[in-house]
Amino acid sequence: MPENRKAILLFSGGLDSSTVLAIAKSEGYDVYAISFRYGQRHRVELEAAARIAAQMGVARHITMTIDLRTFGGSALTGDISVPKGRSQEAMNTGIPITYVPARNTIFLSFALAWAEVQEAGDLFLGVNAVDYSGYPDCRPQYIAAYEKMANLATKAAVEGHRPIRIHTPLIHLTKTEIIRKGLELGVDYSLTCSCYDPAPDGAPCHACDACLLRQKGFEEAGVADPLLERFNHSQG
Amino acid sequence: MPENRKAILLFSGGLDSSTVLAIAKSEGYDVYAISFRYGQRHRVELEAAARIAAQMGVARHITMTIDLRTFGGSALTGDISVPKGRSQEAMNTGIPITYVPARNTIFLSFALAWAEVQEAGDLFLGVNAVDYSGYPDCRPQYIAAYEKMANLATKAAVEGHRPIRIHTPLIHLTKTEIIRKGLELGVDYSLTCSCYDPAPDGAPCHACDACLLRQKGFEEAGVADPLLERFNHSQG
Repeated sequence: MPENRKAILLFSGGLDSSTVLAIAKSEGYDVYAISFRYGQRHRVELEAAARIAAQMGVARHITMTIDLRTFGGSALTGDISVPKGRSQEAMNTGIPITYVPARNTIFLSFALAWAEVQEAGDLFLGVNAVDYSGYPDCRPQYIAAYEKMANLATKAAVEGHRPIRIHTPLIHLTKTEIIRKGLELGVDYSLTCSCYDPAPDGAPCHACDACLLRQKGFEEAGVADPLLERFNHSQG
Repeated sequence: MPENRKAILLFSGGLDSSTVLAIAKSEGYDVYAISFRYGQRHRVELEAAARIAAQMGVARHITMTIDLRTFGGSALTGDISVPKGRSQEAMNTGIPITYVPARNTIFLSFALAWAEVQEAGDLFLGVNAVDYSGYPDCRPQYIAAYEKMANLATKAAVEGHRPIRIHTPLIHLTKTEIIRKGLELGVDYSLTCSCYDPAPDGAPCHACDACLLRQKGFEEAGVADPLLERFNHSQG
C-alpha cells in the first residue's frame, strides 16, 4: 500500500463496479468514485451509484455529464433497440450493439485527470474479459496499453512520481466468481443496477444480455438475486 | 491517401489547430472538426472555431460540452490567475499552471469515439513540443503511446481494419515555421484566437504566454499579425 491511499474508481452503480469498490476498500484505499451521465438509456443506474456510494462509504463521488449521443453508434445511447433473449453463444460472438465506441477510453481519461489533480496513483475499473469477450476495451492488452500511455500523459509522469497503476480485479473472473467475491465482502447487491433497458422505476427487463448474465451468475452461485426480491416485494 | 478520406481534427480555433486544418485539407482529407466547451476561461475561442470552420470548409464541426472545472488544477479552468509577462526562459521551465490535467488525453478520446463511428482512420492535432517543452501530453512519446492504445481500443482494432494514425504535423515546428506554413496554405489568421485571457470581445491580453509566443512568431516571420489589425481597426 503506497503512502497516498487515494484510488479513482470508474463507478456505474452496477454489480461489477460495486464489487470493485468493495475490493478497493478491502485493500485499504480511499475511494474517489466517478460516474458518468453520458446519455445512457439506463440512466437510473446513476441513482443506484449514489445509493451504493453512500452505503459503502467513499471519500467522494462525482458524476460527470458528457453526451455520447452526439456520436451514436450504440444501442445504449441511440435509437437502436437493446437485443433481448440472446443465447450465451450469441453473446460471445462478435461485438454487441450495446458496445459504446471508445467509452472506456473516455471514462479512463476523465479518471486520469481526476487522479492527476488528486495525486492519486491508482485507478480501478470493473472490466471483464470473460463475458463479452469481443469488447475491445475490456481486454488485458488494451488496459496495459492505456496504463503505458497514462504514464506518459501527466505531470506526475514528467516529474518522476510513482507510476500510475490500473487495477482490473475482475478481468479474468466469471460473473459467478464476481458475485461470490462481492458477497464475501458484504456488497448489498439489492442496491445495484445491471439492466440495459430498465423500466422507469429501475425494474430490470430480465431479457437483455446484462440481465441474463446477472441471472446466470446468481443461479450458478446458488443464491437468490436480492434485486429481484426488492422488486417482487415492491410489486406485492 | 486511403480510400476513406475522413479525418478527425481536434480544433480549438487557435493558430495551431487552424494551421493543421489547412494541412489536412491540403493532403486531401475531409475534415471532421471537434471543439470542446470545457469550462475554459477563453471560451471566446469557440466563436473563432465556428468562423474558421465555416470559412475554410469542413465536412462537419461539432462542439462537445464537458466541464473540466470539476477537477480544477489549472489556470485555464479555475480561479488561478493566468501568468502574464513571462520570459521565454520561464515559459520553458517546468509545467506551466495553464496546463490542464489530462486534457489532450480526454480530447483525443472523444476524437477516437467519433472516428470509430465515422470509420475515420486518421486523427489530427496541433500539439507542439518546441514551445512549452514541459507539457507532458504534447511529447512525441506520449502521442506514440496514445496511438498504440487507440489501436487496441476500438471495434476496428478487433475487426482488423486499417490502423488508426495520429498526425501531429506541427510537433517539431517553431511558431514562426507554423505561421509561414499556414500563410502558404492561405490561413486567415485574423480569424484565429490564441489568448488565454481575452477580453469579452475576444481582444487578446498581449501578456499571457500564448499572446507572447504568437507575437514572437509573427515578428520572426516578418509579417504583421492580422488579428491585431482587426482589433486596432475595430477600436479606431
